[in-house]
Amino acid sequence: MPDFSIGVDLGGTNLRIAAVSAEGQLLEKVTLGTKVILGRDQVINEMCDAIQRLSAKYKATGRLLGAGIGIPGIIDMQTGMLRKSANLPGWEEYPVRAEIERRLGAPVVLENDANVAALGEQWLGAARGVPNVAAVTLGTGIGGGIVLAGKIWHGMNGMAGEFGHVTVEPEGRPCGCGNHGCAEQYASATAIMRMAREAIASGEAPSLAQAASSDPEFGARSIYNLAIQGDEHARRIFRSFGRYLGILLAGLINVLNLDMFVIGGGVSSAWDAFAPNMFEELRERSLVYAATAPTDPLSSDARGKEGAAAQTESRTERKTIITRALLGSDAGLYGAARVAVSAG
Amino acid sequence: MPDFSIGVDLGGTNLRIAAVSAEGQLLEKVTLGTKVILGRDQVINEMCDAIQRLSAKYKATGRLLGAGIGIPGIIDMQTGMLRKSANLPGWEEYPVRAEIERRLGAPVVLENDANVAALGEQWLGAARGVPNVAAVTLGTGIGGGIVLAGKIWHGMNGMAGEFGHVTVEPEGRPCGCGNHGCAEQYASATAIMRMAREAIASGEAPSLAQAASSDPEFGARSIYNLAIQGDEHARRIFRSFGRYLGILLAGLINVLNLDMFVIGGGVSSAWDAFAPNMFEELRERSLVYAATAPTDPLSSDARGKEGAAAQTESRTERKTIITRALLGSDAGLYGAARVAVSAG
Repeated sequence: MPDFSIGVDLGGTNLRIAAVSAEGQLLEKVTLGTKVILGRDQVINEMCDAIQRLSAKYKATGRLLGAGIGIPGIIDMQTGMLRKSANLPGWEEYPVRAEIERRLGAPVVLENDANVAALGEQWLGAARGVPNVAAVTLGTGIGGGIVLAGKIWHGMNGMAGEFGHVTVEPEGRPCGCGNHGCAEQYASATAIMRMAREAIASGEAPSLAQAASSDPEFGARSIYNLAIQGDEHARRIFRSFGRYLGILLAGLINVLNLDMFVIGGGVSSAWDAFAPNMFEELRERSLVYAATAPTDPLSSDARGKEGAAAQTESRTERKTIITRALLGSDAGLYGAARVAVSAG
Repeated sequence: MPDFSIGVDLGGTNLRIAAVSAEGQLLEKVTLGTKVILGRDQVINEMCDAIQRLSAKYKATGRLLGAGIGIPGIIDMQTGMLRKSANLPGWEEYPVRAEIERRLGAPVVLENDANVAALGEQWLGAARGVPNVAAVTLGTGIGGGIVLAGKIWHGMNGMAGEFGHVTVEPEGRPCGCGNHGCAEQYASATAIMRMAREAIASGEAPSLAQAASSDPEFGARSIYNLAIQGDEHARRIFRSFGRYLGILLAGLINVLNLDMFVIGGGVSSAWDAFAPNMFEELRERSLVYAATAPTDPLSSDARGKEGAAAQTESRTERKTIITRALLGSDAGLYGAARVAVSAG
């Protein structure tokens, strides 16, 4: 019955396609094990087949409003081509959108994966009903998306939201982007593993060394598990993580003064391990946050300074909310479906 | 004949009032020596008198579209009161807008001074015709304003654009805002003087020491004059200035991907002393800038890396422009006149 759109999440591991009603109801979700490694043409074939199958099924009862595809990479919104994508070799310099549109016989929107994740959370997730929001996706790297007045903010040519490459430590670690001290060198799964390796190599973190040698799947999650069990070396890693994430967010808050910042991605599940240090940095480093922070449930120390600030600012109703994403990996799927509708 | 609006620039030194046509033509500008130190009521009296005088004169030939007032401080856009202003003691907790409106019998817009400066440059200055722009005002501190789609971006409650308090050095110098390592501790007139004092105190900058003792008006401008004469200690100060301004701008470009960043304020006249280092940081620290930079007239070293990037990105027409403000101290006056029109 309902009008619907198709959302596609073209991730590094799975290809997922969903039919979503215009009201945000999931009608059907298909997860294909298609590995990106099989190559561009195979992926596009399977994607188009699935889109057509879902469309045909739900067209019986409603109108197809469009299709949106979330892609990891920088997209040229005008040409519908990938400008840059580390995870999709062979997709650059290829008319991705035109080819998919040709096969489907329908208009398609290509969109950066972090942007659709932000839009998904804004449409149906943690930021539902919040007009201005940024999403920070903590995974292998850091992704970012900005939604202003309910629409993705692309910037001049689709490159806005590169939060992972904001400098947080001027003389810091080199990054693949050519900079050094980028946020994603300090607050990502990769950064957690790097810090663990360094701690192990220093010989001063025997608990991490033991876990690394006994756990065949030793990774960021293992280090988180050690941290919540009180392991000091693991906790130190997440304190540093929280500190640098806080520095990044403090800058974003000072610049953008948005209503909400949504923290998602796989590493956001380690929230309790990094959030206290993140909030500590925010209070210190963002005068905007200090003036607009809600009473912080994480903060047990009711400091005089904060009390006074809260009083002075009591006439300001609006608060800066930093919160966890709600939709997990579905955020991008919903956002892709949404972007097809708003563009259509 | 033309419809017009009134713009007011309530600076720390002068109070300036202008009548500006809707097309951006200056009809008349009045500069009053009124010192803010004389107090709120005196300033408001003189301001309202001047506004009324100008309005009466040009109402004979055109329609008054509104009045806008640029104020140094954080303004509560809803209540029209100052939330915080370091330079206007006694103005907080006072119904500024309501009082001025009562006296004028007309609606008035209060706006942050850095925001109106950004809007002024976007309307009639360096960013004329550029929809999305940020202005960085380098003075005693650093002010910031963001214009998106031709309108000031206020954020959630008018606090957006606090560029001066973005952390650029995590373990850096303490700032009055409670943070340490804020951009304005490294790239402002205050920062230039602090670095000069430190160099003099170290005993290793005899040229600066001599200038300081012989020049009764020794200040940021004196240090700039030494720098362009080749004094190595003075040049080092501006290199550091450019570096940190570059770190700040690189972050803004990565996050916002705007068409243009306009550098204004008194210290922007030292452009040739700090810009080379600023651009160096931008190229290294912003992948967005690297992908969208115009051929840089400042860069005499035609590096292979940049050449390749320029080629790859040649299909992208739009460039990230970093440029100097054009309107000087009039930017805020024009912007204040403009904001009155767009709001009216």
